[in-house]
Amino acid sequence: MVKGKHSYFFKEVVLILNRIFTLMVILGVPLTIIGSLMHWSSIVMFIICSLTVIAISSFMGRATESLAIISGPRIGGLLNATFGNAVELIISIFALKAGLIGVVLASLTGSVLGNLLLVCGLSFFLGGIKFKRQKFSIYDARHNSGLLVFAVIVAFVIPEIFSMSMNETKTLQLSIGISVIMIILYLAGLFFKLVTHRGVYMQEENVETEHEEPEWSKRKAVTILLLATLAVAYVSENLVHTFESVGEQFGWSELFIGVIIVAIVGNAAEHSSALLMAMKNKMDVAVEIAIGSTLQIAMFVAPVLVIVSLFMPTAMPLVFTVPELVAMTTAVLLTISVSNDGESNWFEGLILIAAYIIMGIGFYLL
Amino acid sequence: MVKGKHSYFFKEVVLILNRIFTLMVILGVPLTIIGSLMHWSSIVMFIICSLTVIAISSFMGRATESLAIISGPRIGGLLNATFGNAVELIISIFALKAGLIGVVLASLTGSVLGNLLLVCGLSFFLGGIKFKRQKFSIYDARHNSGLLVFAVIVAFVIPEIFSMSMNETKTLQLSIGISVIMIILYLAGLFFKLVTHRGVYMQEENVETEHEEPEWSKRKAVTILLLATLAVAYVSENLVHTFESVGEQFGWSELFIGVIIVAIVGNAAEHSSALLMAMKNKMDVAVEIAIGSTLQIAMFVAPVLVIVSLFMPTAMPLVFTVPELVAMTTAVLLTISVSNDGESNWFEGLILIAAYIIMGIGFYLL
Amino acid sequence: MVKGKHSYFFKEVVLILNRIFTLMVILGVPLTIIGSLMHWSSIVMFIICSLTVIAISSFMGRATESLAIISGPRIGGLLNATFGNAVELIISIFALKAGLIGVVLASLTGSVLGNLLLVCGLSFFLGGIKFKRQKFSIYDARHNSGLLVFAVIVAFVIPEIFSMSMNETKTLQLSIGISVIMIILYLAGLFFKLVTHRGVYMQEENVETEHEEPEWSKRKAVTILLLATLAVAYVSENLVHTFESVGEQFGWSELFIGVIIVAIVGNAAEHSSALLMAMKNKMDVAVEIAIGSTLQIAMFVAPVLVIVSLFMPTAMPLVFTVPELVAMTTAVLLTISVSNDGESNWFEGLILIAAYIIMGIGFYLL
Repeated sequence: MVKGKHSYFFKEVVLILNRIFTLMVILGVPLTIIGSLMHWSSIVMFIICSLTVIAISSFMGRATESLAIISGPRIGGLLNATFGNAVELIISIFALKAGLIGVVLASLTGSVLGNLLLVCGLSFFLGGIKFKRQKFSIYDARHNSGLLVFAVIVAFVIPEIFSMSMNETKTLQLSIGISVIMIILYLAGLFFKLVTHRGVYMQEENVETEHEEPEWSKRKAVTILLLATLAVAYVSENLVHTFESVGEQFGWSELFIGVIIVAIVGNAAEHSSALLMAMKNKMDVAVEIAIGSTLQIAMFVAPVLVIVSLFMPTAMPLVFTVPELVAMTTAVLLTISVSNDGESNWFEGLILIAAYIIMGIGFYLL
Repeated sequence: MVKGKHSYFFKEVVLILNRIFTLMVILGVPLTIIGSLMHWSSIVMFIICSLTVIAISSFMGRATESLAIISGPRIGGLLNATFGNAVELIISIFALKAGLIGVVLASLTGSVLGNLLLVCGLSFFLGGIKFKRQKFSIYDARHNSGLLVFAVIVAFVIPEIFSMSMNETKTLQLSIGISVIMIILYLAGLFFKLVTHRGVYMQEENVETEHEEPEWSKRKAVTILLLATLAVAYVSENLVHTFESVGEQFGWSELFIGVIIVAIVGNAAEHSSALLMAMKNKMDVAVEIAIGSTLQIAMFVAPVLVIVSLFMPTAMPLVFTVPELVAMTTAVLLTISVSNDGESNWFEGLILIAAYIIMGIGFYLL
Repeated sequence: MVKGKHSYFFKEVVLILNRIFTLMVILGVPLTIIGSLMHWSSIVMFIICSLTVIAISSFMGRATESLAIISGPRIGGLLNATFGNAVELIISIFALKAGLIGVVLASLTGSVLGNLLLVCGLSFFLGGIKFKRQKFSIYDARHNSGLLVFAVIVAFVIPEIFSMSMNETKTLQLSIGISVIMIILYLAGLFFKLVTHRGVYMQEENVETEHEEPEWSKRKAVTILLLATLAVAYVSENLVHTFESVGEQFGWSELFIGVIIVAIVGNAAEHSSALLMAMKNKMDVAVEIAIGSTLQIAMFVAPVLVIVSLFMPTAMPLVFTVPELVAMTTAVLLTISVSNDGESNWFEGLILIAAYIIMGIGFYLL
């Protein structure tokens, strides 16, 4: 009974959010076009584009979700894994094209920090205020902790440290090598999760998933996904071009824009669904979204951007700044040690949020 | 029966220790006054003051304990959390006043290393010689591991790394920001432990605690606490002024004095009670004292000192030296990985002690 | 039944391997002598000596194994712990004599990386292809994780960081102090495992061990061990002298030769037995070999080499290069987080192998 009441309340919230996002898209896309033609001020364009990207990405999320349900768990998992961070990828490609390599690396950092600290933290905190102790699968938490250490600590730290005594060519060679290995490992991980070990570790969830019904038909979902991707691409390009002058006017560094602003805009859609899940006490799903998204960024988006950058004017090596790397590494250690017991409460959420704020202040002052 | 015998033996040990400490206070305080008026040599004053501080702090511990029992678990927990590291705080404030910022940061480092490696190590070792396998709550160990990673790895590493490319003003701003966040989090942690989640995770201990009787009446305890605080303040001021010339005569660096000497003097009282608990096979309490004290130092004493230093001639940013930071970080990782299984034995104790000795040699040679 | 079939298949594989190794020794030792007298080219000598060392070390392994079974678990454990890395020790002593300190440190690094990432990785991967989920003792995994953090993170990182602001004499003093402590701790660990806590944590294995029969008699085993040690010493000396010119011809750095080549040659014998165990689903033994060997290298071979180097022309401080240290530290964190759940599968194996390849590329490009 109580569960039914909860579900009803959350359905209402989701419906209202969807209406708001629809309105934002209907207003935002034309405004972006007009503003771009009429050369509105950077700050106005920055605000319009940011909000519009967030709104469109919620449509992409819903379309992917519908397609995933229609295509069954295997293809569905693949779709989620590919389109889950499409917005982030599109913004980053335009930033690469504009030569803003620092912003791209910073936004990767920001996505990792945002997912691990802010999304997990808010999920634990908001969920923990409603429920005294929330549990999630210890197995998943530990499986993911191995991947997080690999993706962030090994694959990001090694090029950083080794490149200190390398020339640029060798640094790029190392980055490409690591990127290829990571993409292979990412695909192998999908193969592991969707084929050889599907359902081996998570019986309960599968049962629940069967009942779900797609929001949109296959045709409608594909159409929306295509249109949304085009729209996001157009708006993102406009957004990227505002970074420089917005940074100057607010006194924000390239690093701060990437780590905080781009990361929040690029991941807002997933963030909200993780929070909704946490407040429904579906902690397994909330943690899976936050950590799964981090792994996707680190093991798929980052290496793909390295490869893509080879066809751009300036190639991007996988070399973060030291503060970025230290922030990501400590975020991984903190998340692992906080989530290692398969339980969460509001105080653990607060710890993660506090870590995010500390890092945010740090990047602001840098 | 055996338990009764043990209890009796330990009560005897405690009684003898208490008598020795009483004697040390009765002799030490007047000697400090006489020595300070007659300008005795630094080394003599250093030895007298150190021993007197240790003795007085045992009285503060007993007074706090009595008050905690009288006031019930909530206020009691608050009292313990506030007065538990009062001696450390008082010595540090006098060191700040004397401009010895390096000594203060080093003594914070030393308290963290001493509690995590020496106290945990000796507890595991001495307890492990008597009992083959000692168990303690896995839940607490994991809960604390998240806090340790936050307090030491995130909150201490971030300002260190970020300040490398910041000017002094921004470094101080970052330190103040982090300090405020840590104090809020420390208070939130008390609220979590004493209000919203009291008894949620630790049923057994509460049962035992009910039987305890206070050693002193409320009035006597308050009086002793006040007198002891005054006495510690007076003796500490004299102690701090001996550091420079003692360091010169023994060839000890500021770092070594802070990390090893001040840390041992400032924490001796708690150290002895943790060891007594370990030898009584109350490993839960021993670990709680050692790790709880570390968290208090990192999340309460350190940020309070940063704030206090703003009203002193020289402000203290939360920036440790690289060796200090690496020592603390590796100590946290070692303690977490050793205590993660909720069990201890003499060999695990030896590992922690060995790590402490290695770091001690390192700081001595620096 | 199935188990019998497996056993039979693996016995066949072992028999064939043994024959190949016998042939390699019979050919390799005379060829090394002839080549050394006739001054064959470095590359030819490098290949002959490498293969011969691998073949002889398999004989040393079998002799130690037989002696261990004959002498019972205590002395047997001691023998394994002493002779397990004898080949590595012998090659390193000749490299020290030749003044190749960089190669020695690099080969220690390579042994740690090879055991933790390559051997564990291949064991998990190959075992995981045959068996969906393989389990091993969580207790051992956690016990070992404490030791790994101590040996690699504390004992290797501390001298590195502290020596940055020390002169050479003090760096050497610190290295000697740490080495003495580590050897004492290694012996204490054997005492713990073989005397005070023998069988406390691992009942099942002991039962199985009782059935084993020695391959060779005591006399034969001792004779073979002595002859093999002499032969390895002779061949290793020739091998070490080829490093410089082989490195020049292939464009390999001292670091790459040590980390990849020497480490593989020096540990090949153990590597193969770990893999055989993994494919027999004896994951406990495979993990024990890989991690036990790492601990032996870090806590026994490395400090012994520091002490031995004091009697050589150039003393070797325990100071690795930054890339070596970062590679070892991240490898330890990765192995701990992957093996922490007491389970393995092919994908976890792939993660470890990928980390090894990434580091290999890094050291090749350095």
